[in-house]
Amino acid sequence: MSAMITVNVELGDRAYPIHIGAGLIGRTELYAPHIAGSSVAIVTNTTVDPLYGDALRAALAPLGKKVTTVVLPDGEAHKNLDTLNQIFTALLTERADRKTTLIALGGGVIGDMTGFAAASYMRGVPFIQVPTTLLSQVDSSVGGKTGINHPLGKNMIGAFYQPQAVIADIGVLRTLPLRELAAGIAEVIKTGAIADSEFFDWIEANTPALNDCDATALAHAVKRSCEVKASVVAADEREGGLRAILNFGHTFGHAIEAGLGYGEWLHGEAVGTGMVMAADLSVRLGRLDEKSRARLTRVIADARLPVKAPALGEDRYIDLMKVDKKAEAGEIKFILLKRFGETEITGAPDEAVRATLAASI
Amino acid sequence: MSAMITVNVELGDRAYPIHIGAGLIGRTELYAPHIAGSSVAIVTNTTVDPLYGDALRAALAPLGKKVTTVVLPDGEAHKNLDTLNQIFTALLTERADRKTTLIALGGGVIGDMTGFAAASYMRGVPFIQVPTTLLSQVDSSVGGKTGINHPLGKNMIGAFYQPQAVIADIGVLRTLPLRELAAGIAEVIKTGAIADSEFFDWIEANTPALNDCDATALAHAVKRSCEVKASVVAADEREGGLRAILNFGHTFGHAIEAGLGYGEWLHGEAVGTGMVMAADLSVRLGRLDEKSRARLTRVIADARLPVKAPALGEDRYIDLMKVDKKAEAGEIKFILLKRFGETEITGAPDEAVRATLAASI
Repeated sequence: MSAMITVNVELGDRAYPIHIGAGLIGRTELYAPHIAGSSVAIVTNTTVDPLYGDALRAALAPLGKKVTTVVLPDGEAHKNLDTLNQIFTALLTERADRKTTLIALGGGVIGDMTGFAAASYMRGVPFIQVPTTLLSQVDSSVGGKTGINHPLGKNMIGAFYQPQAVIADIGVLRTLPLRELAAGIAEVIKTGAIADSEFFDWIEANTPALNDCDATALAHAVKRSCEVKASVVAADEREGGLRAILNFGHTFGHAIEAGLGYGEWLHGEAVGTGMVMAADLSVRLGRLDEKSRARLTRVIADARLPVKAPALGEDRYIDLMKVDKKAEAGEIKFILLKRFGETEITGAPDEAVRATLAASI
Repeated sequence: MSAMITVNVELGDRAYPIHIGAGLIGRTELYAPHIAGSSVAIVTNTTVDPLYGDALRAALAPLGKKVTTVVLPDGEAHKNLDTLNQIFTALLTERADRKTTLIALGGGVIGDMTGFAAASYMRGVPFIQVPTTLLSQVDSSVGGKTGINHPLGKNMIGAFYQPQAVIADIGVLRTLPLRELAAGIAEVIKTGAIADSEFFDWIEANTPALNDCDATALAHAVKRSCEVKASVVAADEREGGLRAILNFGHTFGHAIEAGLGYGEWLHGEAVGTGMVMAADLSVRLGRLDEKSRARLTRVIADARLPVKAPALGEDRYIDLMKVDKKAEAGEIKFILLKRFGETEITGAPDEAVRATLAASI
């Protein structure tokens, strides 16, 4: 049996473990403690089910539960109310009850939708995350954010809802398209940049290993990212303050995603460029030195992420950022970098934002 | 200024007050403490907005907030995902942010949908309930249950989410259709029956006054119902155990509603007949004496509620009850009455259930 690392997310009676390692998807004993009822519903998509559905079902078989699989279409474009309703219809058709455990098998879209379905089905049933992308292993598996998109805004409808457990199988990342691997590395870079300069140094030195899908490097990246995010979330579960630093790069990034249409750029790609833009704004507002900005941009480029923003037009960017969840009464909030490991949340003068937009395209 | 009674629902950091009295809808100071942001969105329907929308907007005017009104179609048939999405679209169009307070102005359908919209919009915004039916004043305003229906089941999608405050204006009940008044009295009767035999005696003696919409009698009925329900909910916020007693009459009642199609019978009417059926089952299973059964049935009939169930067919009833949220692994759970003020939650032999169904039509 291969090595397994466990990170505990400390949230009182909503605490849960994140298990990290190669081959975990097939380990029955990781699921057993979290399935109290007589049935399980796996929610996955048309890409992941053929790859890992059987391995998961084989792991569940010894538990003797009724197992249903709900296979959704793949992609961010389907992260909407209609697809969510497909999950509810399947659960009701299969007579899922209040003790049915949902298992999210897939990337962030599957995790977000399954989590929200679990939060809402009969006002809340247990769920387990089995994230199959690097992005979802480091990002959406920690923090309990669940939700769907609305045509007028990303992740606008959802709930804070914690899983019973996260099972992050590093082995499955070998089948991940390179572009999606890079998108996951973007969130790893973000974590180092905002909260842990030593980890940022490690990422800078290990970008080639991460790019090559080295299992040891990936396991460390996932572990440290989850630890940092878990400590931030534990201090601020419902995003009152500190937790907002996790949105570094997201204000610009969400505007890119929404402006191009969801799914055109991957979330991590948009966050990559969003961090370059946020760092640019940080320098303009006197928070960050030019050397750190250049260093961050270089690490993002080394991870094969885009560092230039799409030309949506400045007014369109500003319009899109004003409807961001972090905006209050129309004022856009930015997470600025002061140095690696330190951030500041603030509004920004319109001219500075426009200068950053002009410089970033 | 007329008399106001306040019942506090004790839920730690989610505690909130229920203000009860005539003319409360117009009292600015009741809303002020619960509106922290710069905007408010009233969610109401085509029936209630012409009656009380202006009074509410006039009460909010001195606060200087941006006020939006979202007017939905009236009726249980619209308590679905499409109508919920109308609320989200309106909020996003009006740039509602995380501090926007939603105000539910209407009956249970508006309260349930607005509450779920508040729970889900940007993963949670504050909301105030202004219930305008007796049923919603005594029932859906206490307990934090929010949600919508699915074609395959009632209230199958939702959240436990507490309001900031409930403002129960007894004066608005004068415009309530008699059938809806009776449906509200059903829940008052339920509260007395399951949890407070003295209150049940009071209801028995005061049914004529409640039927006549007597303000003093109604205020007492709302107050005592809210107190009882609040104490049950405080002990069991997420429906782990005790709280299930509030579902007395609901197992049969939900089957009636679902079987006839939502909206054919009012919820309170279905619960009225459902209590008659649950009492019949209680007698059959040796829990309740025949005299108490007859007494409960008479009080329900005195409140001008139906006491005979619609003929859906026994198999159909059983099928519908199996998909009830209270069912576990297909076993139907019944709340039985042992005496006024005391209940028991249990499964029941199929023959007894069928006998009750046969006797109730």
